[in-house]
Amino acid sequence: MRDVAIIGVSQTKFGELWDISFRDLITEAGIKAAADADIEGADLEAMYVGNMTAGLFIQQEHIASLIADHSGLTPIPCTRVEAACASGGLALRSGIMAVASGYHDVVLSAGVEKMTDVVDPTPAIATASDQEWEAQQGVTFPSLYAMMARRHMYEYGTTREQLAMFSVNNHKNGALNPLAQYPFEIGVDQVLNSTMVADPLRLLDCSPVTDGAAAVILCPAEDARKYTDTPVYVKASAQASGTIALHDRRDITTIDSTVHASRTAYDMAGLGPKDIGAVEVHDCFSINGILAIEDLGFVEKGQGGTAVEEGLISIDGEIPVNPSGGLKARGHPLGATGIAQAAEMVWQLRGDAGKRQVEGIEIGMTHNIGGTGGTAAVHIFGR
Amino acid sequence: MRDVAIIGVSQTKFGELWDISFRDLITEAGIKAAADADIEGADLEAMYVGNMTAGLFIQQEHIASLIADHSGLTPIPCTRVEAACASGGLALRSGIMAVASGYHDVVLSAGVEKMTDVVDPTPAIATASDQEWEAQQGVTFPSLYAMMARRHMYEYGTTREQLAMFSVNNHKNGALNPLAQYPFEIGVDQVLNSTMVADPLRLLDCSPVTDGAAAVILCPAEDARKYTDTPVYVKASAQASGTIALHDRRDITTIDSTVHASRTAYDMAGLGPKDIGAVEVHDCFSINGILAIEDLGFVEKGQGGTAVEEGLISIDGEIPVNPSGGLKARGHPLGATGIAQAAEMVWQLRGDAGKRQVEGIEIGMTHNIGGTGGTAAVHIFGR
Repeated sequence: MRDVAIIGVSQTKFGELWDISFRDLITEAGIKAAADADIEGADLEAMYVGNMTAGLFIQQEHIASLIADHSGLTPIPCTRVEAACASGGLALRSGIMAVASGYHDVVLSAGVEKMTDVVDPTPAIATASDQEWEAQQGVTFPSLYAMMARRHMYEYGTTREQLAMFSVNNHKNGALNPLAQYPFEIGVDQVLNSTMVADPLRLLDCSPVTDGAAAVILCPAEDARKYTDTPVYVKASAQASGTIALHDRRDITTIDSTVHASRTAYDMAGLGPKDIGAVEVHDCFSINGILAIEDLGFVEKGQGGTAVEEGLISIDGEIPVNPSGGLKARGHPLGATGIAQAAEMVWQLRGDAGKRQVEGIEIGMTHNIGGTGGTAAVHIFGR
Repeated sequence: MRDVAIIGVSQTKFGELWDISFRDLITEAGIKAAADADIEGADLEAMYVGNMTAGLFIQQEHIASLIADHSGLTPIPCTRVEAACASGGLALRSGIMAVASGYHDVVLSAGVEKMTDVVDPTPAIATASDQEWEAQQGVTFPSLYAMMARRHMYEYGTTREQLAMFSVNNHKNGALNPLAQYPFEIGVDQVLNSTMVADPLRLLDCSPVTDGAAAVILCPAEDARKYTDTPVYVKASAQASGTIALHDRRDITTIDSTVHASRTAYDMAGLGPKDIGAVEVHDCFSINGILAIEDLGFVEKGQGGTAVEEGLISIDGEIPVNPSGGLKARGHPLGATGIAQAAEMVWQLRGDAGKRQVEGIEIGMTHNIGGTGGTAAVHIFGR
């Protein structure tokens, strides 16, 4: 198996981008990543694109062909990978395998979602849950995560304020990220007084509806220094599945796929939670950020809320979480999120993260999940 | 790069399967493939599933999680791959890379589509074309391929009867395939008198709307004989992209992605068209079967119609085409087709194809395309 490095990354501005189309968004991300890697489009040998549901958002499947075509890169292979909100993480892993296998040398892994071209994105997003047992019964993602939050509060004494503090930390970091959808700070009171969405989750516990794209460029580790003086190496790429429906879980306060994927990743890298200098977690809702820091092994199960309250997750804390602003403040264009997380970790490891730089970081992790944890992808990167 | 072998295959019955759900269909294919390989589900390390548009057909994305869950195989990684009607071919290629890379040893690559749970599948299928430049203007796939057929007739003198003969050959073979949707013979007159769909294409030039699933099980070539006495080896796995929209082609009678993917595959395998003992081509419409045998290099450009008329493509001809019955007679459950093609080629190479067996076959090829050729996947297999 060949080791793999990242030699270029990019992210478009995330937001409600009504004046830019799906095809232009992803092409912009690709061009910027190629420029960052100092390569030409013609140097690319293959592309993998994570996207959850262009079929439902813009009535366009077969986006891999569209993207190769619109970016002028035919006839290179282009493949769309989908696992709901973990689509980006799986596109990254597919690109890594393409390089690791020897099939291709220089590969682009990207993600894109255009969510604001529909009146209501909720039915499309709900297709990430079990249509027959959840969505058709009227359950939506805020309500699924609300049940997880309520149970976590009951089991472990997690407080409403601790959930709010996760969002506050995200916005504190996101305020320093010019590519974030909401680059401003918020306070605990604002979260607690925001519109109720699904009790106990309020509007400012929820990641937004976002348009955006991101891309990374991969090559064999042994070739990386031909392209850049600051390669970032893939130390581990792991993925796990879990039950798609929440009611089939042994415990709705643990996302088993996160546990499995992270343990596989730690084993691959020969590292443990204490080695991780910063992590981008999948906080589609504030409760999921708290579950993540528990399930990734940074704190004991049930201690996530307390850890947030004690400041462990701040940029200068014990385990900096979401220096980018996370899904809440950076935004959550579903298929792009897993790639945007990797881009952030590369910027951090290069020392290029500006005012949100985590000092002294040597190893970084990304955690990307689909649905309520039916899929999890965990990556570990190092300098 | 590790060489890869196929140790088990399966296909469900193809047809209008109103009494079996999406999740049961794909699970049936997986169980049968595991039985064919004489392994247990617990032996599988990862799964790749090709599916075009469950989001639009059954309002279900995140099918990878659903499938891992419903088949009782969590927490193994499961990934959905999509490239319209080439989704199956790309799921096969992704599984091959997963094994070739060393990430996984025993991997299932499958494909599934449930197309008959909607009133009209046409809008969903049309999302494989360029939504902004084709589908929104009212162009559908029969009309796109009709333009290609009309131009081929104009350029090369291909006749209406020759198109019909491609369907007749498919049905002659499909009549011998108990898993085919339409296992019966048809005559040229029936094709010529069938309902007009998009001039010059008539109903019996068109592949049907189909429910179905198929699966193959892959492992490192060096391990294959631990599982089976009749492994089939992957000699080449190639993929190419082309423009998604037909109007952007230099020539609408040539599918460049087929040309690129097949030339890459021949190079990988160190083989040429004369070495291929049988081929499963992507005849979503009869014209595409004729384009395929030209673009894959079996006959000169423009000679496809004549080759069909002269019987070169029959089971005992010079280059047997679609011994399974092809998309026309076996059926075309979009995401499953590329895998069903591979299953057929494995049966042929094992000598297990029953009455439709191609005698003396040593090397087989599959050709799977998405849209009008925005994606092409070509695989070469040998004993």
